[in-house]
Amino acid sequence: MLLHTVHFDSAAPVQVPTGTLLSEAAHLAGIEIGQPCGGQGRCGRCVVQVTAGSVRRRSALRITPEDIAQGYAVACQTVVEGDVSVHVPQQDTLERRLTSDRTAAEVAPPPGYNYLQEQTIRRVLLRMEPPNLDDQTDDLSRLRTALRQQAEFSHVSVSLNMLRSLSDLLRQGNWEVTCVLEILTESDSSGIQERLVAIFPRVVFDDEPLWAAAIDIGTTTVSLWLVDLLTGEVKAQVAEYNGQIQYGEDVISRIIYSGKGSGLRDLHEKVTGTINNLIDQACKRVNAKPHEIVKAVIAGNSTMIHLLLGIPPQTIRLSPFVTSVNQPPGLHARELGLKLHPEASIDCLPGVASYVGADITAGVLSSGLDDMDALTLFLDVGTNGEMVMGNREWLVTCACSAGPAFEGAGVVHGMRATKGAIEEVWISSPKSPHPYEANYRVIGSAKPRGLCGSGLISLLAEMLITGVVDKAGNINLNLAPLNPRIRSGDHGPEYVVAWGSESENGSDVVITAVDIDNLKRAKAAIYAGYIVLAQSVGVSLDLVEQMLIGGSFGKYINVEKAVQIGLLPDLPWERFQFLGNTSVRGAYMALISQQARQKVNAIAARMTYIELSADNAFYEAFMSAMFLPHTDLATFPSVEAAMEKPQNVSAQ
Amino acid sequence: MLLHTVHFDSAAPVQVPTGTLLSEAAHLAGIEIGQPCGGQGRCGRCVVQVTAGSVRRRSALRITPEDIAQGYAVACQTVVEGDVSVHVPQQDTLERRLTSDRTAAEVAPPPGYNYLQEQTIRRVLLRMEPPNLDDQTDDLSRLRTALRQQAEFSHVSVSLNMLRSLSDLLRQGNWEVTCVLEILTESDSSGIQERLVAIFPRVVFDDEPLWAAAIDIGTTTVSLWLVDLLTGEVKAQVAEYNGQIQYGEDVISRIIYSGKGSGLRDLHEKVTGTINNLIDQACKRVNAKPHEIVKAVIAGNSTMIHLLLGIPPQTIRLSPFVTSVNQPPGLHARELGLKLHPEASIDCLPGVASYVGADITAGVLSSGLDDMDALTLFLDVGTNGEMVMGNREWLVTCACSAGPAFEGAGVVHGMRATKGAIEEVWISSPKSPHPYEANYRVIGSAKPRGLCGSGLISLLAEMLITGVVDKAGNINLNLAPLNPRIRSGDHGPEYVVAWGSESENGSDVVITAVDIDNLKRAKAAIYAGYIVLAQSVGVSLDLVEQMLIGGSFGKYINVEKAVQIGLLPDLPWERFQFLGNTSVRGAYMALISQQARQKVNAIAARMTYIELSADNAFYEAFMSAMFLPHTDLATFPSVEAAMEKPQNVSAQ
Repeated sequence: MLLHTVHFDSAAPVQVPTGTLLSEAAHLAGIEIGQPCGGQGRCGRCVVQVTAGSVRRRSALRITPEDIAQGYAVACQTVVEGDVSVHVPQQDTLERRLTSDRTAAEVAPPPGYNYLQEQTIRRVLLRMEPPNLDDQTDDLSRLRTALRQQAEFSHVSVSLNMLRSLSDLLRQGNWEVTCVLEILTESDSSGIQERLVAIFPRVVFDDEPLWAAAIDIGTTTVSLWLVDLLTGEVKAQVAEYNGQIQYGEDVISRIIYSGKGSGLRDLHEKVTGTINNLIDQACKRVNAKPHEIVKAVIAGNSTMIHLLLGIPPQTIRLSPFVTSVNQPPGLHARELGLKLHPEASIDCLPGVASYVGADITAGVLSSGLDDMDALTLFLDVGTNGEMVMGNREWLVTCACSAGPAFEGAGVVHGMRATKGAIEEVWISSPKSPHPYEANYRVIGSAKPRGLCGSGLISLLAEMLITGVVDKAGNINLNLAPLNPRIRSGDHGPEYVVAWGSESENGSDVVITAVDIDNLKRAKAAIYAGYIVLAQSVGVSLDLVEQMLIGGSFGKYINVEKAVQIGLLPDLPWERFQFLGNTSVRGAYMALISQQARQKVNAIAARMTYIELSADNAFYEAFMSAMFLPHTDLATFPSVEAAMEKPQNVSAQ
Repeated sequence: MLLHTVHFDSAAPVQVPTGTLLSEAAHLAGIEIGQPCGGQGRCGRCVVQVTAGSVRRRSALRITPEDIAQGYAVACQTVVEGDVSVHVPQQDTLERRLTSDRTAAEVAPPPGYNYLQEQTIRRVLLRMEPPNLDDQTDDLSRLRTALRQQAEFSHVSVSLNMLRSLSDLLRQGNWEVTCVLEILTESDSSGIQERLVAIFPRVVFDDEPLWAAAIDIGTTTVSLWLVDLLTGEVKAQVAEYNGQIQYGEDVISRIIYSGKGSGLRDLHEKVTGTINNLIDQACKRVNAKPHEIVKAVIAGNSTMIHLLLGIPPQTIRLSPFVTSVNQPPGLHARELGLKLHPEASIDCLPGVASYVGADITAGVLSSGLDDMDALTLFLDVGTNGEMVMGNREWLVTCACSAGPAFEGAGVVHGMRATKGAIEEVWISSPKSPHPYEANYRVIGSAKPRGLCGSGLISLLAEMLITGVVDKAGNINLNLAPLNPRIRSGDHGPEYVVAWGSESENGSDVVITAVDIDNLKRAKAAIYAGYIVLAQSVGVSLDLVEQMLIGGSFGKYINVEKAVQIGLLPDLPWERFQFLGNTSVRGAYMALISQQARQKVNAIAARMTYIELSADNAFYEAFMSAMFLPHTDLATFPSVEAAMEKPQNVSAQ
């Protein structure tokens, strides 16, 4: 038998025969590589890097071609074929690598970014003669003259707010001030109009940043990027929970709350409060002052935009589900109580419908979907599943009332993806020595408190693959004798993910039959959306050449697991791409490019919205998708292949 | 001796010889006609109407040619020449006639007023299909489409405020609403832009009024005219004291107050409170609702406009005396807290300088001065004396810091022209049986409390004419033995106008030497203003062909008395014209005529402002005018003629 020498980092080398798994060789070398899935090649947690020598990969699930090119290999699925050197990454490092994998590219302005070309904001230094008894020109006229003579701005509008501080600012600056203006129109022959945005009573040097913000208002999280308009660079990225959460987790409960007493004002103030906090945070990082921010582009779903603007969102909730406004007019920070410069320009991106808002048009922009040749499906999973199918020729869109199950609501031990949430679960094979055992990973390396969305998807998929649940989603109580985790609880069958002895509060963390039903409905609604969109344009879902997944939730989805429960279509791995928060990125793109900004309008205008609430095709597709992964298992060939044969087990 | 029969109304006829005064004949007939001036033909209080027969008028002072044509005659200056019938008007009736004499013409829109031509406000009825699941167009887009298709408005801007109520209003009106729009520009080729001002959730019929307001913010009084834009007619006129009075009588004290703590906000809120009260009052009269008012044109002095707008007015007060803004931009009612429709258009007319504000440009407009061939002097006396000299070719203007003496301030028994104020005084001739006796008229037929501006002018003139004061304004204590009213008080010489036994609070109402000095300074400042304006354009003051007097104060000035103290130049009676509140009238004209509105801008641009504070010519003219009526008595020939010879008296 031919032996090969395997070096693991600084450990003593070991000798193994051809065909030995790297995971076994590591064990021999005294190195424990975590294998939560029991060495089934499903979890990808045992990835190592082969730095020299020859190996053969049996499976490359969870490894991209780029990873392979760099020598990465799943230890439990890779066999030795010669002398090799292997590096075992720190688990932390690995996790970070895997989660940032295939997500959005680095944030950078487009090459050749030109402030003067891309921005309608201008900053000019003006020097004026002070008034005297021989020249009693009023302050505003003096400023206008300087703007005209020194900067060629001849049609500058000045707000009342600005007039109220004009006299002080001009004198504070000793008649030497820096003005920020916004050029409003360059259309037609009628010439240019400008708006005075800010007066800084000092000389601002040319290389000082000109601050602006790109903001995404998510139902759960608000994100803000602070940008220097002069260079187009993102200088700070901050995010925090939307303060409205205390009044309801999802848009529907917020709409209801907004209709009560001071509800609309409360919600408006909560979200502006959140944004104002983010502004403070971002400003601190770069040593800027909030009132130096002169512009913001804002994306968000239609309800979030209505609440930000203080517009009653009631009609969004009730049939026929219309918004007050899809394309808000240009506004100013003071109108909204935002802590930028009071006159800062606020540009809310346009939405398409009540449940396809500016977060989706921004998402389409940042995904590039509208420019693609390939048939592409864009999905943003949050409380609702909004999706867009199309390419450069056409775009169709719909929103599925998935409910907040994937955000942890409607699930007994569901929770948001914060510290203590189980974010990934592996269940050991029926054939393993300890069948149906659970392994899990918790966010923040804490004791488990519950299950977040990705944990639920992962759990449900494992339950299906190992046969703990059947295709209908029923927990197989026949397996109870094999593992006490499978049991009948107070509310029917359940599976224990974490025992009370391991958990934060000492109670078992379980998933119940009701939870599974809720998750099934949510994923079925989303899958039915794909089907309706595909049908509406007469294509088959498997023709989708590219599937783009946006939203911060999407970032943590394990594609394989999501496919296994039928939340994502069963497409080849390489067709999936995670884009992260496409909404804030779209807002950023619109902020730093006039062309991109105009594109968002074009996207909104091009998108054909399909209302699902009264659509029979949707209802049928939904019913068909109420199985795991689907009634028609032929549409999920990879899942069929992966499923353990339950009869092996029940024969035991 | 030829006797004539004189009939006085229903009294028994009397027989009198040729040459008998009507006043004497009345006495014979047992009818007492008040003659406060002692039959000198100065007060005009004994006017009667000769309805038949022949009389000869010795003097026609205080009687216009129109009055004469109707038979009016001053009884103490008119003699019988044949049988006559005479009607003695009720004193009340008479007063009203005389005070309305020569004041502004009736308020009426110009003939041929055409709403569509003169107004940029439009009112349109829109009928929309309600949204349904097959047409989920957002509310704003639905409205825009209706505006475009049903009214040809294609570029309508909609405020955030309007968006906030849009959804409710459209549904309240069951998709049948009346919109009010403002056409913003019709300039150039670039086409029209419109602004949505109001949505009324009902069918408004074509003949229902379209409400707007013309407002004048005086330092003392705020006036508001409610106008139906469809006909141009004034439907209600209301006025009340400016609520800011509690923080200071004059602009200077208000400016000072505005600089303290919440002062600016207090003053802003007081004046908006006053305007809002007036709106309520006016609306009640015509059964309108405040939010149905869609536009207002506002005039007022520069300080009043700054305070209304909440702009700090400090620079107005301090050298070099500049405003923040002379030409405020277009605003909306909600920005100012005014109780019109929140989106109502607020058009503040332009001013020229710190002390020549929009009240004066509006005054020039309403006086027609800028269109006249004749050399004209326009005066607005209030706290300051603002004046404009010119014609269609040129306009020069200045403001004299007259101080509030003519408003009763700085005078020991001075008061505003309210109930209990002595508004006119007559002092009996040195030759009369009771020399230097005072007669007076009190506003509201009440017991006297003090002296208002017109009372002070009248009193000072009578004192000068009768020799109680000399040209320098010194009270002649030599006359004290002839009448106890002339006496030496605690603070020097004084004259008792009303004894404590007649007065409201039981104290004597007096004028002191210090009071006289203050009045002299005030009138001298104004007269010096005329001189400087005339000199600045190289004309002599007596070439003024027309003198127009605006402001509500001007309405009550007795020209003859004002000339006698040197407050008005000594021009022939027929050259004077009282115009009433020219500021609110100018605002009204600008409201109902686009051409007039543009004219106000042109007037403001054309007016050459002369700053007096550092002008030596002004100082010299002021010193020369510190006499009664003037150092150079030759410039006041009528006064010289009227003055009693004091030596007659001191010889007694």
